[in-house]
Amino acid sequence: MTQSFKISELAALTGGSLTGEDAEITGIAAFETAAPGQITFIEKPGDEKFIEQLKTSQASCLIVPLTADIETSVPLLKVKNPKFAFALIAEKLHPYKWKSGWHKSFDVPENSDIRASFVGAFVTVGENTYIGESTQIYAGVRIGANVSIGKCTIIHSNCVIYDNVSIGGDCVIHAGTVIGADGFGYVRGDEKYIKFPQIGTVVIEDEVEIGANSCVDRGALGETRIGRGTKIDNQVQIAHNVQIGERVVIAAQTGISGSTVIESDAVIGGQVGMGDHARVKSGAIIGSQAGVLPGKIVRAGVWWGTPVQPLDEYKRQNAHVKGLARLKEEVKELKKKLENKEPE
Amino acid sequence: MTQSFKISELAALTGGSLTGEDAEITGIAAFETAAPGQITFIEKPGDEKFIEQLKTSQASCLIVPLTADIETSVPLLKVKNPKFAFALIAEKLHPYKWKSGWHKSFDVPENSDIRASFVGAFVTVGENTYIGESTQIYAGVRIGANVSIGKCTIIHSNCVIYDNVSIGGDCVIHAGTVIGADGFGYVRGDEKYIKFPQIGTVVIEDEVEIGANSCVDRGALGETRIGRGTKIDNQVQIAHNVQIGERVVIAAQTGISGSTVIESDAVIGGQVGMGDHARVKSGAIIGSQAGVLPGKIVRAGVWWGTPVQPLDEYKRQNAHVKGLARLKEEVKELKKKLENKEPE
Amino acid sequence: MTQSFKISELAALTGGSLTGEDAEITGIAAFETAAPGQITFIEKPGDEKFIEQLKTSQASCLIVPLTADIETSVPLLKVKNPKFAFALIAEKLHPYKWKSGWHKSFDVPENSDIRASFVGAFVTVGENTYIGESTQIYAGVRIGANVSIGKCTIIHSNCVIYDNVSIGGDCVIHAGTVIGADGFGYVRGDEKYIKFPQIGTVVIEDEVEIGANSCVDRGALGETRIGRGTKIDNQVQIAHNVQIGERVVIAAQTGISGSTVIESDAVIGGQVGMGDHARVKSGAIIGSQAGVLPGKIVRAGVWWGTPVQPLDEYKRQNAHVKGLARLKEEVKELKKKLENKEPE
Repeated sequence: MTQSFKISELAALTGGSLTGEDAEITGIAAFETAAPGQITFIEKPGDEKFIEQLKTSQASCLIVPLTADIETSVPLLKVKNPKFAFALIAEKLHPYKWKSGWHKSFDVPENSDIRASFVGAFVTVGENTYIGESTQIYAGVRIGANVSIGKCTIIHSNCVIYDNVSIGGDCVIHAGTVIGADGFGYVRGDEKYIKFPQIGTVVIEDEVEIGANSCVDRGALGETRIGRGTKIDNQVQIAHNVQIGERVVIAAQTGISGSTVIESDAVIGGQVGMGDHARVKSGAIIGSQAGVLPGKIVRAGVWWGTPVQPLDEYKRQNAHVKGLARLKEEVKELKKKLENKEPE
Repeated sequence: MTQSFKISELAALTGGSLTGEDAEITGIAAFETAAPGQITFIEKPGDEKFIEQLKTSQASCLIVPLTADIETSVPLLKVKNPKFAFALIAEKLHPYKWKSGWHKSFDVPENSDIRASFVGAFVTVGENTYIGESTQIYAGVRIGANVSIGKCTIIHSNCVIYDNVSIGGDCVIHAGTVIGADGFGYVRGDEKYIKFPQIGTVVIEDEVEIGANSCVDRGALGETRIGRGTKIDNQVQIAHNVQIGERVVIAAQTGISGSTVIESDAVIGGQVGMGDHARVKSGAIIGSQAGVLPGKIVRAGVWWGTPVQPLDEYKRQNAHVKGLARLKEEVKELKKKLENKEPE
Repeated sequence: MTQSFKISELAALTGGSLTGEDAEITGIAAFETAAPGQITFIEKPGDEKFIEQLKTSQASCLIVPLTADIETSVPLLKVKNPKFAFALIAEKLHPYKWKSGWHKSFDVPENSDIRASFVGAFVTVGENTYIGESTQIYAGVRIGANVSIGKCTIIHSNCVIYDNVSIGGDCVIHAGTVIGADGFGYVRGDEKYIKFPQIGTVVIEDEVEIGANSCVDRGALGETRIGRGTKIDNQVQIAHNVQIGERVVIAAQTGISGSTVIESDAVIGGQVGMGDHARVKSGAIIGSQAGVLPGKIVRAGVWWGTPVQPLDEYKRQNAHVKGLARLKEEVKELKKKLENKEPE
């Protein structure tokens, strides 16, 4: 059952070149633990610790940068981006195992078009729903009515997809994630809150990955959208009408309030909070635990703190705060000096 | 299947008055996208952008404040609170679709009184449990023993309600939310932690809405309580013995520690953290990401920061911090001046 | 069905001594609400409020510290650690009710060894999985292939355990928690992100408790590990390759980034964020909402703030910041004084 490739084949796959003898590779490993038959990688081959460890490495192949100049008996695969090549090779050696078959408990819903190659146990799907070829629906997943899910998408166990949601192809949604719940919008009357209508949709484009126990709320009137190739971690909260561009990265436990826009290629750390109607421009990088005020525009560059500031400013300000004890001391001394002069 | 109302009927519903010709309304929309047959609203009709857009609006009715003085061919519905009227009308035009029927997989538990009009697939319910009329239990919901759930409550897919929990009527609990798990209480002995007993209950009163993937822990010895009409967002954590009043609003990812009290009509932002045994008084508004120390009493007014301060103080303090570079410069100059005087 | 013990039996259990008459105890309660037949405890019997309330207490037994000197008709159980003794007694009087039986919907997987005494409705388990004696698998739980779960472990409803995960004995995992989802690791190529391999495992040792809706990701190449006796609250996020020692306590909504190490006996508050490759040393206590930078080493002691500092420093710094208005005033006065001297 084990996949196996020659280094020369992996060189062709990654556009790299082999130095040393060709060999059969059956698995990947971290540099420290690589055993015979395994391939590993190193990003910065300069440091001494690495050179020492390399002497006793059992790895059958080491992926290194093009510029690496290393003496070793371990065969080398030289590539432009070792980590990227390693990830490509990992996909080949440890591919996702596509499952097939529909569990006997699955009742095909009316007016639906279910082409999924795998439907696990105790799955429920609503009417008028389309699920594309090869798609994998794990046990206990709930899919509403009028849902569309593309090809080769993987929905892990116990996810809940509400009605009218659209999910693209080649997506991965991890366990327990909820897509399409009502947005959090109420209007206060004299005596109580009533719900602002939450009748919009969610559109998730192709190649999006969302972690476990995250939430993406439906739009109030329009749609909540997550762009192609965006990657979202566990326990992230995406509110109604948020618009996220392509290739955005959002780390765990971040929360994004209603109608905020995150442009393509932004990078958002963990536990970041964003107010509503904010805009994060393409190229912005926001550090963990930062807070973005409602309506704020965050331009390209690195940002941190609450409220977010450019990282340089944040650091300068932090240094000033840390220097406060000394500043206070200086003012005290000045005062004393001035008082000593007084009697003159 | 589409609901349809005359503007004059909607005027009667909302206590408003119609200016212009009566027409048939079949749906709601945002102002920018409203099409023929749709009703929309505007809160502040003063600004130019709106007046320009109104010229080409296809809406069949526009809800405006009583004081609005607008020249337009679009029929106007004048009301005291346009957003509230819009939400009321949305409820009429896009009502929740009550489902009925019990899935064949449902085993009615012993000594139970299940009156729910809808029980989805693969639901489990424990003994001695009561579920009121019209209530909707979606697929994959787990309900423990000795649970009570009122009438017209909606429990979305894959929620888990532990034993001995009580939930009122007209509530909505979104998917993946867990109610009644053990509180987080341990006692450290010499060698390990043992669990402090978590044998209390959770009581959720009528008209409460809780978002997706939230948690409400049971009381350690007494109860955790959420008051009537309170609205809670996604991924909120409510610890053992927390007492929340009526019409409280809590935004996403906020965490409230054990035994803290939140009085009626408080408003809590997202990602707020509260220590244990704190008290948030009625009328308090706490900004996102704020931190409330254990035992702290937060009075009426607007608060922000960690530890929370009145917003005015927080802003003043922030301004002082931002001015630190200049202050430092000033002290430096004073020093120089004083030194220049020295030789005199 | 009610358990019942004599105070003298509970004294033997807890290594305490009885003062007053022996009696039958059927339940536990908080001091304020204890009724006849119930046992309660008090940690600091000094304060007046307690002495006043004690006069009317209906409790059948009061657990107090060894040093307590109280005049009361209520029988006293004197122990070294009243809260610990109370928790021990609670375990006896209100023990977990072990369930038995396998639901008819359970299909025993191939090559598996399922000894669990309870398997709820609509549970799914993968091939080559081992589940130990007495273990309780609640309804809707998903367990992957090649999983190992020890004896006397309780997995609450709708949890998801991915393939190749190992969970010890005497653990409790609360509802909705996801163990073994992919870590959040991607490599950016020229045009898109591809997944860094996430093919490692999760190992959870004995006596670990994890709250509801938490996530523990699998290691990228190696393992994510949670040590014996560690207690984790709701909505906690533990990333790939995190190593957590024994008897660590982590409060709700905390997030720990990849490869970070938390040594045994550390205590972590709620909503704490930790960057990757950080190390929290044994004996460290980190306050709620604190932020630990990537690579940071947090030594024994109490820490708070973002970035974390020793609590004393944090407090001093906070005091300086609060004093900024006065400092500014002082600098202004100095300036004025110096200017007044100028004309000399």
